[in-house]
Amino acid sequence: MAISEFDLTVSQLSRALLNLDLIVSKAEAYAQEKNIDPETLIQARLYPDMLSFVANVRIATDTAKGAAARLSGTNMPSWPDDEATFEDIHSRIRKALDYLATFKPGQFEGSEKKDIELKLPNRTFEFTGREYVLGFVLPNFYFHVTTAYNILRHNGLAIGKADFLGAPK
Amino acid sequence: MAISEFDLTVSQLSRALLNLDLIVSKAEAYAQEKNIDPETLIQARLYPDMLSFVANVRIATDTAKGAAARLSGTNMPSWPDDEATFEDIHSRIRKALDYLATFKPGQFEGSEKKDIELKLPNRTFEFTGREYVLGFVLPNFYFHVTTAYNILRHNGLAIGKADFLGAPK
Repeated sequence: MAISEFDLTVSQLSRALLNLDLIVSKAEAYAQEKNIDPETLIQARLYPDMLSFVANVRIATDTAKGAAARLSGTNMPSWPDDEATFEDIHSRIRKALDYLATFKPGQFEGSEKKDIELKLPNRTFEFTGREYVLGFVLPNFYFHVTTAYNILRHNGLAIGKADFLGAPK
Repeated sequence: MAISEFDLTVSQLSRALLNLDLIVSKAEAYAQEKNIDPETLIQARLYPDMLSFVANVRIATDTAKGAAARLSGTNMPSWPDDEATFEDIHSRIRKALDYLATFKPGQFEGSEKKDIELKLPNRTFEFTGREYVLGFVLPNFYFHVTTAYNILRHNGLAIGKADFLGAPK
């Protein structure tokens, strides 16, 4: 069976978000063990004008949400960006996982040809569904999940590639 | 037309490698402008036991090479990991792009069901071609390209998401 837009977004991104959630649990335990104020990790960034850890989690979950909504042609819920604690961050990821779990493969049929308009602060993209998935959703999602990982790693959290990839099969 | 393993690997990863090559050119110009020894950026890492910039480029190109070879069932060339300069790094990326360009979509037909064995230093994976692409190739490739980007950004290179995504359509 050919790979569908559903497999590439709902299935694949859910798996990566589950892995991210486990990484967040490790960060939480690390902060507790080392007496690090959770805020220090949550707001950490790799350079002054780069995004914080929590902002990367928000954009990763928003990218997954946007993909499912746009490709299936359903209305997108709005999620306030107000996470301040590790518990809030777990809830944000859980909210994205629960949202993705509401979709069925049939809702994505024909989505590869759908016109997708994506308005970002500095650019507006006009894609087909296919171009949107391959040229935006996947690279953008993994960019933010990897950057979240790198921020924690840079702050001494002992995680490795196995945490990022999880159990790939 | 359904998305094929060829689209997901050869087409998508070539685009990302072209973007990476332009980022390397920016790093090169930045080192020159700021009188930074290129070695400083090439060997930079985000934490003492994380991989250097050049190692991330090597693994990203190897992931792309491995995907094309394994899915098409062809022998994989071996590339020595001896890059020491920005010029060498451009050559490594160019070598990967030239290699990917030798493949044709037809060589990937049925690859989603192929048995793929992947031996990593600490784990051996047994996948179908489909699982290999979704559970390993894409996350692993983007992990290393993003980490290469983050290392340069952490060292002050003024690049942004537009450099990472390139022209997504």
